[in-house]
Amino acid sequence: MKHALLVGTDVVDEKSIRTLSKYSKVYKLVDLTEDRLDEVLPSVDCLVVFSWPRQLTSERLQQMTGLRFIQSILAGVNHVPFATLSKDVVVSSNAGAYSAEVAEYAWALLLSAAKRVVELHVALREQRWNLKRTLDEGSEITVLREKIVGILGYGGIGSVVGRIAPGFGMQVYAYSRRKSAAKGVKFFTGTNGLTELLKKSNAVVIALPLTSETARIMNAERLSKMKKDGILVNVARGELVDEKAVYEHLVANPNFRYATDVWWYRESRESLQTDYPLLSLPNFIGTPHVSGPSGLATGRPVQLAVENTIRYLRGLRPRNIVNPEEYKTSYPY
Amino acid sequence: MKHALLVGTDVVDEKSIRTLSKYSKVYKLVDLTEDRLDEVLPSVDCLVVFSWPRQLTSERLQQMTGLRFIQSILAGVNHVPFATLSKDVVVSSNAGAYSAEVAEYAWALLLSAAKRVVELHVALREQRWNLKRTLDEGSEITVLREKIVGILGYGGIGSVVGRIAPGFGMQVYAYSRRKSAAKGVKFFTGTNGLTELLKKSNAVVIALPLTSETARIMNAERLSKMKKDGILVNVARGELVDEKAVYEHLVANPNFRYATDVWWYRESRESLQTDYPLLSLPNFIGTPHVSGPSGLATGRPVQLAVENTIRYLRGLRPRNIVNPEEYKTSYPY
Repeated sequence: MKHALLVGTDVVDEKSIRTLSKYSKVYKLVDLTEDRLDEVLPSVDCLVVFSWPRQLTSERLQQMTGLRFIQSILAGVNHVPFATLSKDVVVSSNAGAYSAEVAEYAWALLLSAAKRVVELHVALREQRWNLKRTLDEGSEITVLREKIVGILGYGGIGSVVGRIAPGFGMQVYAYSRRKSAAKGVKFFTGTNGLTELLKKSNAVVIALPLTSETARIMNAERLSKMKKDGILVNVARGELVDEKAVYEHLVANPNFRYATDVWWYRESRESLQTDYPLLSLPNFIGTPHVSGPSGLATGRPVQLAVENTIRYLRGLRPRNIVNPEEYKTSYPY
Repeated sequence: MKHALLVGTDVVDEKSIRTLSKYSKVYKLVDLTEDRLDEVLPSVDCLVVFSWPRQLTSERLQQMTGLRFIQSILAGVNHVPFATLSKDVVVSSNAGAYSAEVAEYAWALLLSAAKRVVELHVALREQRWNLKRTLDEGSEITVLREKIVGILGYGGIGSVVGRIAPGFGMQVYAYSRRKSAAKGVKFFTGTNGLTELLKKSNAVVIALPLTSETARIMNAERLSKMKKDGILVNVARGELVDEKAVYEHLVANPNFRYATDVWWYRESRESLQTDYPLLSLPNFIGTPHVSGPSGLATGRPVQLAVENTIRYLRGLRPRNIVNPEEYKTSYPY
């Protein structure tokens, strides 16, 4: 058998491991001692990871001289250490594998923010509300009908977010790298296009990959382009938004809302620790990156990653190959 | 001028009052002293109310011998004291006036419950979460795609709730009094039909009017028909659900969720006070009846109520006339 595959995560089920074994020798990282790992590394040509395994330090990566293909089970590949990677290595994302679940989550956050569900529930629980206030402040609820949802990144997740919008009577604006087309969607490209979308949208959903170009794309200047009572939703990566800028923007604009399922990095890994007390603000909603795991539970992301890995093992061109040039900078950006 | 109209609420704007004045003498309840009110009551043939005015006691209602038409600005008419009302009086609801806003709110509650947004946000805020738990418990997030949403009542609000479902890849089941038809919707009628819908639906949205027949329709037996990890959403009236039954059901079934914007009655009026500590449960979401006021803020409900009142004043048949037989019992049901 000419291939040697290292599975660097325990999210791949046994049935999938057996399927992969038909095409390659398969090692599971969890089964290998440190010494055995060092022994097999030079022979490994194919690597399947969820997030990047801590054991695969840059020293060990340099021993992997035979490595040719990396498949990510996470949708994004920003966790892959491109800077230490040989140019011969092809990296595939798992784009689209979580689209339905993450798009549903984006709408959950958008609607929770628009309808102030978290804030009002907490106010009731703390007995800080009465029905008189409801009548006085009912107008603070954002009605979505006939409003505009702007979507940053119109790939797997973004396009599913967009397809839900017409049911709510909302128009879809989309920001994408290339001029694209989809029924009922108005596309914007380039820096000026992004600014125009931010100015006109009532709610903005971030569904971009985290690359050198997109890191901190929502900085203080771009936040200031959004409507004062706008809603920003992030289901992609925390690092796409500047933490200090969004905290200060929320404090200065109490009707602006930021709802996120994804968090900033500490030591190259996502962390629930923040530098600013976002969770103390009534106009912030945070959930602990559960949208992806809810997709993982369906089995689909592992299935798609395994199918794509088999394409490589059979000598076919894998799908979702990323451009390493877009990942040349990494945390802390 | 042959008509005398009493506006029993301050939600009708001055422009609407001027429009109504073209067709009728108009009295505003807020402008009348108690004595003056007693003086004009016998001449009033037309009454426009939001919720039922406290001044219009059953004694005063009996003095309103000329009353022929009541227009509600609230969508529902369960607040109208039908038992004290002469059979000559025609009552119109404001059905459909809040459909878009209340349907949006229903989806906000459904998604908040499915994605555990409130529970997870509070857990983060209280530092009771870490990303390890996310991976372990990600499967506790309900994915809506390819699931069934059951809608109780397929009128103004219910049908808008239904039209949003296909965007999420959900199938729509609807319970209605009469066998009806709508594209892609499976209809259920009668007690057995309701049971079947409850058994098969993953989420159920209550969008029924509160009548003698529908009060406490979601009792202990019907709740027990729902899936153990089902979601119940109420944007109609609190009294459609039995409070004790839903509290006990939530305690016994931690994966079941009840999300409501509407509350039970105390002394014939909605109250945020509950008999059971629902707000202490992680699988309960409550908001203080804000969906209606968010609709009211658009101006549409007042506009529609005024248009319908003008139909009466011009001698045309008003729309949305309700059947008083359906309201023969009232709180406490």
